[in-house]
Amino acid sequence: MSETIIATDVVAHDNAAREADLRRDYETLSERLDRRGIAIDAIKAKVAGFGVAVPSWGVGTGGTRFARFPGTGEPRDIFDKIEDCAVINELTRATPTVSLHIPWDKAEPNRLKQAASRFGLGFDAMNSNTFSDAAGQSHSYKFGSLTHADKGARSQAVEHNLECIEIGKTLGSKALTVWIGDGSNFPGQVNFSRAFDRYMDAMRAIYDGLPDDWKLFSEHKMYEPAFYSTVVQDWGTNYIIASELGPKAYCLVDLGHHAPNTNIEQIVARLISRNKLGGFHFNDSKYGDDDLDAGSIDPYRLFLVFNELVEAELADESFHPAHMLDQSHNVTDPIESLMLSATEVQRAYAQALLVNREKLLGFQEENDALQATQTLKAAFRTDVEPILALARLESGGAIDPVAAYRASGYRARVAAERPAVAGGSGGIV
Amino acid sequence: MSETIIATDVVAHDNAAREADLRRDYETLSERLDRRGIAIDAIKAKVAGFGVAVPSWGVGTGGTRFARFPGTGEPRDIFDKIEDCAVINELTRATPTVSLHIPWDKAEPNRLKQAASRFGLGFDAMNSNTFSDAAGQSHSYKFGSLTHADKGARSQAVEHNLECIEIGKTLGSKALTVWIGDGSNFPGQVNFSRAFDRYMDAMRAIYDGLPDDWKLFSEHKMYEPAFYSTVVQDWGTNYIIASELGPKAYCLVDLGHHAPNTNIEQIVARLISRNKLGGFHFNDSKYGDDDLDAGSIDPYRLFLVFNELVEAELADESFHPAHMLDQSHNVTDPIESLMLSATEVQRAYAQALLVNREKLLGFQEENDALQATQTLKAAFRTDVEPILALARLESGGAIDPVAAYRASGYRARVAAERPAVAGGSGGIV
Amino acid sequence: MSETIIATDVVAHDNAAREADLRRDYETLSERLDRRGIAIDAIKAKVAGFGVAVPSWGVGTGGTRFARFPGTGEPRDIFDKIEDCAVINELTRATPTVSLHIPWDKAEPNRLKQAASRFGLGFDAMNSNTFSDAAGQSHSYKFGSLTHADKGARSQAVEHNLECIEIGKTLGSKALTVWIGDGSNFPGQVNFSRAFDRYMDAMRAIYDGLPDDWKLFSEHKMYEPAFYSTVVQDWGTNYIIASELGPKAYCLVDLGHHAPNTNIEQIVARLISRNKLGGFHFNDSKYGDDDLDAGSIDPYRLFLVFNELVEAELADESFHPAHMLDQSHNVTDPIESLMLSATEVQRAYAQALLVNREKLLGFQEENDALQATQTLKAAFRTDVEPILALARLESGGAIDPVAAYRASGYRARVAAERPAVAGGSGGIV
Amino acid sequence: MSETIIATDVVAHDNAAREADLRRDYETLSERLDRRGIAIDAIKAKVAGFGVAVPSWGVGTGGTRFARFPGTGEPRDIFDKIEDCAVINELTRATPTVSLHIPWDKAEPNRLKQAASRFGLGFDAMNSNTFSDAAGQSHSYKFGSLTHADKGARSQAVEHNLECIEIGKTLGSKALTVWIGDGSNFPGQVNFSRAFDRYMDAMRAIYDGLPDDWKLFSEHKMYEPAFYSTVVQDWGTNYIIASELGPKAYCLVDLGHHAPNTNIEQIVARLISRNKLGGFHFNDSKYGDDDLDAGSIDPYRLFLVFNELVEAELADESFHPAHMLDQSHNVTDPIESLMLSATEVQRAYAQALLVNREKLLGFQEENDALQATQTLKAAFRTDVEPILALARLESGGAIDPVAAYRASGYRARVAAERPAVAGGSGGIV
Repeated sequence: MSETIIATDVVAHDNAAREADLRRDYETLSERLDRRGIAIDAIKAKVAGFGVAVPSWGVGTGGTRFARFPGTGEPRDIFDKIEDCAVINELTRATPTVSLHIPWDKAEPNRLKQAASRFGLGFDAMNSNTFSDAAGQSHSYKFGSLTHADKGARSQAVEHNLECIEIGKTLGSKALTVWIGDGSNFPGQVNFSRAFDRYMDAMRAIYDGLPDDWKLFSEHKMYEPAFYSTVVQDWGTNYIIASELGPKAYCLVDLGHHAPNTNIEQIVARLISRNKLGGFHFNDSKYGDDDLDAGSIDPYRLFLVFNELVEAELADESFHPAHMLDQSHNVTDPIESLMLSATEVQRAYAQALLVNREKLLGFQEENDALQATQTLKAAFRTDVEPILALARLESGGAIDPVAAYRASGYRARVAAERPAVAGGSGGIV
Repeated sequence: MSETIIATDVVAHDNAAREADLRRDYETLSERLDRRGIAIDAIKAKVAGFGVAVPSWGVGTGGTRFARFPGTGEPRDIFDKIEDCAVINELTRATPTVSLHIPWDKAEPNRLKQAASRFGLGFDAMNSNTFSDAAGQSHSYKFGSLTHADKGARSQAVEHNLECIEIGKTLGSKALTVWIGDGSNFPGQVNFSRAFDRYMDAMRAIYDGLPDDWKLFSEHKMYEPAFYSTVVQDWGTNYIIASELGPKAYCLVDLGHHAPNTNIEQIVARLISRNKLGGFHFNDSKYGDDDLDAGSIDPYRLFLVFNELVEAELADESFHPAHMLDQSHNVTDPIESLMLSATEVQRAYAQALLVNREKLLGFQEENDALQATQTLKAAFRTDVEPILALARLESGGAIDPVAAYRASGYRARVAAERPAVAGGSGGIV
Repeated sequence: MSETIIATDVVAHDNAAREADLRRDYETLSERLDRRGIAIDAIKAKVAGFGVAVPSWGVGTGGTRFARFPGTGEPRDIFDKIEDCAVINELTRATPTVSLHIPWDKAEPNRLKQAASRFGLGFDAMNSNTFSDAAGQSHSYKFGSLTHADKGARSQAVEHNLECIEIGKTLGSKALTVWIGDGSNFPGQVNFSRAFDRYMDAMRAIYDGLPDDWKLFSEHKMYEPAFYSTVVQDWGTNYIIASELGPKAYCLVDLGHHAPNTNIEQIVARLISRNKLGGFHFNDSKYGDDDLDAGSIDPYRLFLVFNELVEAELADESFHPAHMLDQSHNVTDPIESLMLSATEVQRAYAQALLVNREKLLGFQEENDALQATQTLKAAFRTDVEPILALARLESGGAIDPVAAYRASGYRARVAAERPAVAGGSGGIV
Repeated sequence: MSETIIATDVVAHDNAAREADLRRDYETLSERLDRRGIAIDAIKAKVAGFGVAVPSWGVGTGGTRFARFPGTGEPRDIFDKIEDCAVINELTRATPTVSLHIPWDKAEPNRLKQAASRFGLGFDAMNSNTFSDAAGQSHSYKFGSLTHADKGARSQAVEHNLECIEIGKTLGSKALTVWIGDGSNFPGQVNFSRAFDRYMDAMRAIYDGLPDDWKLFSEHKMYEPAFYSTVVQDWGTNYIIASELGPKAYCLVDLGHHAPNTNIEQIVARLISRNKLGGFHFNDSKYGDDDLDAGSIDPYRLFLVFNELVEAELADESFHPAHMLDQSHNVTDPIESLMLSATEVQRAYAQALLVNREKLLGFQEENDALQATQTLKAAFRTDVEPILALARLESGGAIDPVAAYRASGYRARVAAERPAVAGGSGGIV
C-alpha cells in the first residue's frame, strides 16, 4: 500500500462535511439518467478507470518571455516534483502517472522509480528537450536540433532522445514524446524540404532505438518558439511523419498548437481513422499556445474532442490514447490547477459517455442537424460532478480536492521547507 | 492563326506610346541584373512561357451572400465567356487556357472546342459542381454530395464527375478538379469518419473513371459554405486523399482556403516533397476566402509560394503544377482584374527566378538568417515590370493591358450587345 | 387575448407527457440551488420576463454565396413571416417581438401592426438595408451607401433610413439599427478618413430624424461583404460613432462580427462602462460571420457575455439592452433553430443569474484566480433546463418546443399552402 | 562633432566599392521617376530627415519562454547598449535616438546623457516597466500593476512611472510610453470594469505628473503575458484612454499587438482622424506578437501604414508621430537586424512618398477600385534602395550597412571585451 502525503484525516474530515449532499445529488442524477436509459454506476466505473498523466514541469510556476512570478514552496528538484504530483493523485485519484522531462528531471533512474512507487505513482511518456541548451552541451540548439544544418548538432539531439528511451526503460515508461522547437523566424532562413528531410532521418534513427513495446509520439505546433515556420507545423506534417516512420509512430495532439479557428475534434477523428492518434497534451487557450487549464476557456471544445474519443473507444476496445496535461500555471497554485484540470478532462469524458450514440447516428443518417447537435448538447449540459466526486471518494480521494488541499496546509508546509526562488524577467532581456 | 477580338491597331497604338520607355527600362534593368549575374533575356523567356488558366466563371461579376451588383456587358453564356477570356489572353499573352465549370458551362463539346480554338485558347482542368443544385436534378446536395448519407445522392454526384471527365476528353482537358461544399454547420450533424469514408469511396469511383493521362485534383477548404466542419478541411486531409487514391491524384491548393496565419508556402513545400502538389487556385485574401485579385493584399506571400515552385522547377524539369486563377470580382471589371491577376502571378514567378539560390543555400547552411532572408527580399524588391511588359509585347500583347483594353471600348461594345442582368440580394433571403 | 396558431391541445398533450418529470427535476434542482443560497423561483421569474426579438428574415432558409437550398413552406411575404414568428413565441414564450427589415418587409404599416398584434407580437428595432439594391432605386449601392463618394447615393441611403423610422413610428418600434456593407475590397479603393467623414455626416442626418424616445444602434463588422476594409469595422470605430452622435446613439454588438480570438465579453464590459451598449445580435460562429444558432459552437462564451449583462443589470435597474437573434438557417427548419436559439440565450441568462457575485468579487480582490473562475464555472455547469421549461409551461408555452412543434404538423401544413421556391446558386455566378 | 565607433576608413572603403553603381542606379531611377513627375532629390531629402528610435533592449539577444540563446558580445549594461545603438546610427544615419527602459537602463541620468551625446544620440520616449518585478520592490506585479486590486501595488506602479518622467526630463526625452502586462488568465479572475476604472485612476495620476511639453503614450496589446484578457486590449480601449485623459495623451500602435487579420492601416487612419495617433512600435509578425524585423513578413502592410502617415503629413505639417522599433532578435545579430529594420521603415516611407495622391483621389472618387489600388502598387513596386543608400552615403553612413558592419569586425571586438552570458531555459521552468 502506498504512502500518502496529505493526512488521511484531513481528507476524511473535509469529505465528511460533503458526503451526504453528494450522495443525495448522485441519487437524483441517477434518477434523471435512468430516464434517459443510462446506468449511472457504469459511467462512474469508467470514470474511476480514467487517468491522465501529470507533467513533472507542471508543478512549478510557469512564466512568459516577459516575466516569471514564482509561487511559494516551489519544487527544488524532481523529487519535490514527484511529491507534488503525489498530492494531486491522492486527492483526485485521476493522475496515476508522471511524465518526465529530460534533462530537467535527470536523476538516477532507480531512485526516481522508488520515489514514485512510494506514492503509488508510475511513469508516463518520456519527454526529450532539444529546444533549449543544457549546461555544457557541445552543440547549441539555437538554430535547430533534429533538423540542424550541422550533423554534429543533429547527432547530439538524436543521442539525447535515445538516452531518454534508456532512462524510460528503467522507469517502466512505454513511450517517447518528441517535440522540437526547430523552425525559422524569417522567410528563407531554412529550406523547408531540406529541414524536413533531416528531421525524418533523425527520427528514423530514434525510431530504430525504440523498444518493440514502445510508442513514439511526434508533436506538432504551429509556431513558437519559431515565428515564421516550424518544422512539424501541423497535423498534416505530423501524419506524414507517423505514417512514414512505422507502426510504432503516432501523432500527439496538443490542444493549443493549432491555427486560430481550427476544428481540432475533426483532426482527432482523422487521426483515429488512420490509426495514428497517439495521445494528447490537454490544456486550453484563447489566443495561441496559452497553456491555460484544461476546459477553462472553451469547455465545449474539450467535450467535442472526447466525443470522438468515446466513439473510438466504443468501436475498438484496444483504443487507448495517452492522456497528459501540459499547462503553464502562471497565476495559480500549480497543484490546484492540475487537480482541477484532471477533473475537467474526466468531466468531458463522463459527459461524452452520456451521448446517446444510437439516436445520434439516426439523426445523422436522416440529416436532422438540429436534433443531432442537441443530442450532444444534452450530454454536455448534464452536470456530472456527482459522478466524478463519488468516483473520487470511493477511490480514496477528496470530494472537493481544492478544499481538502487548502485544509491540509500543504503549500505552507513546503513553503517552509523549500527556499524561495527568484522571479526573473523572462527571455526578453 | 487565331482570330483577335481587340483590334490590332488599338493595341499597336497604345504600345507605340509606351515602347521606347519600356525598352529603356528593360535596358537599365538588364544592366542592374547583369551586375547580379543574371541574364535578363533568360528570365524573359521563362516568363513568356508561363501561363495561368482563367476560370470561365471569373469573367462574370461575383457577389456575396448579401448582394450581387452586376456590371455591364456581363457574359450571357459560355460562348460570351470564352470571348472575354480571349480578350484577356490577347492583351496579356499569359492565359492560354480556360477552365470550365460544369454544369454552368455545359454545351455541345465540339462547339465549345471550336469557340475556344478560334481564339487560340485551350482548356485547362474541368471543374465539377456538386455544391449547388442544378435545375431538375433528382437528389439535392443540401446535405452533401460525394459524402451524402444517401447512396442515391452520392451516386448522382459521382456520375456528374464522370460526365465532366467525358466532356473534358473531347475538349482536350487533362485534369478534373473536385471541390465539394460538403460538411456540417453544427457539432454532431455529421459523423466525421463516416463522411470521410463515403468521400473516399466516391472518389475511388471517380478515380477509376479517370483516363491514364489525366490528373485528379482534390481541393481543400477550411470553411464555407459549411460553417462548423468541411470534409476536406485542410491539406492534411487532402494529402491522405491524394496518397490513398493513387499516382494520378494530387492536391490542389487555393490560396484563400486556409486557417488564419497559415504558412502556405510551407504546405506547398511539403506537398512538393511528397510529389503530391497538383496545382493552384490563385487569389488573395485578408480575412477568409475573400477571392480577391492575386497579389492584391499580400504580394510577398505570393512571391514566397513561387519561391518554392521555382526551386522545385529547377530541381525537376518535369515539375509542372497547374496554375489557375480563382477569384470573385465584385467591384471591378472582371476582365481587368483577371488581366492584372495573371500579370501578378507572372510577376511573382519572375521575381522568384531572380533569387540567387546558390547564395541562399550557403546562408541557410551557415545559419545566416539575416542574409538568407535578404536574399529573398532582394529578388522581391526588383521591379520586374519591364520583363513582363516586354514579354507581352514580343508575344503580341499589350505593354499596358488595362490601358489597351480601355482604349478598345470592348466593355461598352459588349454592354450594347448583352442585355443587363438583375442584381439580387444574395443568398440570405 | 391573442390568437394561437399551434392548436392548444397539441401543446397540452405534449406537455402532459413531460410535466411530471419536469416538476420532479425542478424540485431536485431547487434543492441543490437552495444549498447554494439561491431561490429558484426568483430565477424563474427573471427568466420568464426575459425576451429576445426574432428577425423577420430569420424564418426563411438562408444561404451562402455558393448556393441556397430552400426548405419547404418558406414564407412568401412578411405576413407569412409574422405567422412563423408567432409560432416561435407561442411555443417558447421568449420571443415577444419581431424585428423588421426594410424594404424586404415593406407593407402598409397598419396592416403590419394588426398582423402582429393578432398574435400578441410587438415590434423591436427597425433594420434598414443599404447593402443591396432594391428594384428601381435611383442610385446603386455597389460602391457604398452612407459613405458613397456620390452625394446622391448618400442622400438616398439617408432617406431610406428616415423612412424606416417613419414606418417604425406607426409600428411602435423604438429603435433603428444601421448596418451597412460599405467598405472596400482593395487597398486604396477608398480613402479611410473621407469615407468615415461621410459616414458621420450621413448618420448625423439620420440621428436628427430620430424621435426623442428612440435609440439609434450602429453595428460594426470586421469584413464581408467588403473584404479589405469596412467603414464600421470594429467596436472602436463604433464607439466613436455612438459617442460623437449623442445620447440616443448606442453600439450594437453582433457576436459574429469580430476578429478571430476576440474577447467579446470584455468589449461588452467596456461599452457598458461608457454607457454605450445598445444591444445584441445573437448567433454563434466558429470561423467568421457564420450566423449559426446561438450557443451552438461555444456556449461558454455566450454565458460569459451574459455574465457581464447580469452584473450590469444588478448594478443599474434601468439597464435594458436590446436582444435580437440574427442567424442564417441553412440546414435546419428556421422555426426550430430560432426556438432553440431563443432558449439558449435564456439559458445563458439563467446561468449568469446563478453566479455568486459576492464570492466572485471576494476572490477577485484576493487574486484567487482559480476560485474566481470556478465560481463562474459552477454557475455555467448547472443544468437550468428545468427552470426554463417550467417558465415556458407557466407562460403557456411548450416544455419541449421542438417536440410540440413537430407534433403540430405546422411545417407540413404551410408547405401545402406556400408554393415551393427555387434554390439558386448564390452570388457567385 | 560626435565620436564614431566604426572606423571611418572601413566605411569609406566599403562605400567606395559600391558608390559608382549606386550613383548609376540613382540616375536611372531618377529618370524613371521623372517620367512619373516625381523629383527624386525631394524624396531623398525627406528620407534623409526621417528617423526611427532604437529601443535600448533591442540590442541584446531576445528569447522566448522556452529558451534564450545568447549571442556573442552581448551588452553588459546601458552604456554598452548605447554604444551598440551608436553603431546602428553611424552606419544607417536613420536612428538618431534611443528609447530607454526603466529600471533596466537605470543609471545616473547625466552620465546617460553624456554617454549618448558623445555619439550624437538623443533620447526618445521613456518606457516604464511594471510587467516584471525588479529586485527588492515592495509589491509584486504578479497580479497587476496600475490595475492591481491592492492600492499599494498601484501606487508603487504610479510612482515608478513618475520616476521615469523625472529621469526623462534630465535626458531630454519628451514622452512616456506606458505598456502594462495587466490582465487575466481565466474568465472571472478580474472584473473588467473595476480593473479599467483602476487603470484610469492610475493613469490620471501619471498624466498629472507629465510636463506640459510631454506626451503620454498608452499602448494596447491583445494578449501576452495575460492570456484571457488584457486591460488595454485594443485600440478601442486605447482610444477611450487617450480621449479621456486629455490633450497630451495619445495612442501608441505596435504592429504586432492586434487580432489576426486586423486591418492595422485603418486603425492608424482612425486615430489620425481623431488626432490621437501618438506613434509606433515597428516590427513584423506572422502569428502573434512575434517581434520580428520590420517588413520581414508582410512588407506591403508596412507600406500601407506609411501610406496613411504620408497622407497625414501632407495634410498637416505638424503631424509628427513617434517612430520606434520594438523587436526581439533571437536568431540574428541584433545590430544587423536593427540596421535593416530601420532601413525597411525608411523604405516604406519612401515608397509611400511616391504615391500619386492626386490620381489616387480621382480613382477613389470615380470608384475605379482597380486603378486606385494599382496606384498604390506602382509606388510599392518601385525599388527605392538607391534613394535610401544615397541618403545614407550623403549623411556619412554606409551604402550597405550590414556589409560595412561585418567588415568592421565590431562584433568580434566587443565579444572579446564583454564576457559571454548564459542562455537559460526561458520562463517555463
